[in-house]
Amino acid sequence: MEIIVLKEVITTVDFAAKKHRDQRRKDKHSSPYINHPIGVALNVINVGQYYDVATVQAALLHDTVEDTDCTEEEIRKEFGSEVASIVMDVTDDKSLSKVDRKKFQVSHAPHIQDKSKIVKMADKLYNLSDIIKNAPPSWSLLTIQGYFVWGKKVCDGLRGVNASLEEALDQLFQSNVIF
Amino acid sequence: MEIIVLKEVITTVDFAAKKHRDQRRKDKHSSPYINHPIGVALNVINVGQYYDVATVQAALLHDTVEDTDCTEEEIRKEFGSEVASIVMDVTDDKSLSKVDRKKFQVSHAPHIQDKSKIVKMADKLYNLSDIIKNAPPSWSLLTIQGYFVWGKKVCDGLRGVNASLEEALDQLFQSNVIF
Ligand SMILES: [Mn+2]
Ligand SMILES: [Mn+2]
Repeated sequence: MEIIVLKEVITTVDFAAKKHRDQRRKDKHSSPYINHPIGVALNVINVGQYYDVATVQAALLHDTVEDTDCTEEEIRKEFGSEVASIVMDVTDDKSLSKVDRKKFQVSHAPHIQDKSKIVKMADKLYNLSDIIKNAPPSWSLLTIQGYFVWGKKVCDGLRGVNASLEEALDQLFQSNVIF
Repeated sequence: MEIIVLKEVITTVDFAAKKHRDQRRKDKHSSPYINHPIGVALNVINVGQYYDVATVQAALLHDTVEDTDCTEEEIRKEFGSEVASIVMDVTDDKSLSKVDRKKFQVSHAPHIQDKSKIVKMADKLYNLSDIIKNAPPSWSLLTIQGYFVWGKKVCDGLRGVNASLEEALDQLFQSNVIF
């Protein structure tokens, strides 16, 4: 069992790191994009205390289909249908406008499977914490405010599956970043 | 056990990714540096068929002390003394000149512990394969040749602990890259 976990996790993070190789985060360090999905996987484990291999793999892969040339079929073939279905639950439909994508995240959140809710909370926790510490230089305080309001609406639809992640998010939402 | 492996591996890759955040590889893509240690860990598992958690963690961390602000003490505190001792076995002494560091790798290789030999072979396999596919733009064919000659000398001192890694390295050394 240990062998399988080790192989699956390293294979998954290597796959994601290669897919995201040419992407950088919008933060002031232009951090490698892969640092984000790794941090989301760590949130699943350390904050969510949720130790499910498929969920951790999906956390590592959660932005590959949305942001790289990676397809759902590729994820399914490499990592199986459960991992693929979690990734697709948290993948924005890029045929929608940016505004519609944001609206769809709010309306869609309550309807995704529990493991996907955990990945999505871990993702929002990472992004919101990151913005507090390290906002993209181009973002105004109003943009940050808007992001927090939207993020809270999405997270409201994810409640009921992981109290620790909810609590960590609640602390952020109650912090003084919000007007 | 599964829980511990999952937590240790993700914690380790997150630590390494943060330490290497501002570093890029010398390849033509300026790839994030972290892609390299992740690939070395994958070589340990997929080529070496070696499924030892401490060795995989050391592979993920193997360049942190040499190339970032990370210290041996930090590795020992976070990941324990076995992981730290493997990392230190494969860490160059930067007080030496570049030439002396390269010579020391050759003379030191036979004397490191077996797990360190596996990490070092996996590292050399990654770097030599990478140079074939994706050499730094500034490297001449002579530089590449010299790197292969030196790499083979180091690897000669690492033999006897993992036949699969040795075989993969032998195939590279016999490939037509060498004059
Ligand atoms: Mn994300
Ligand atoms: Mn290395």
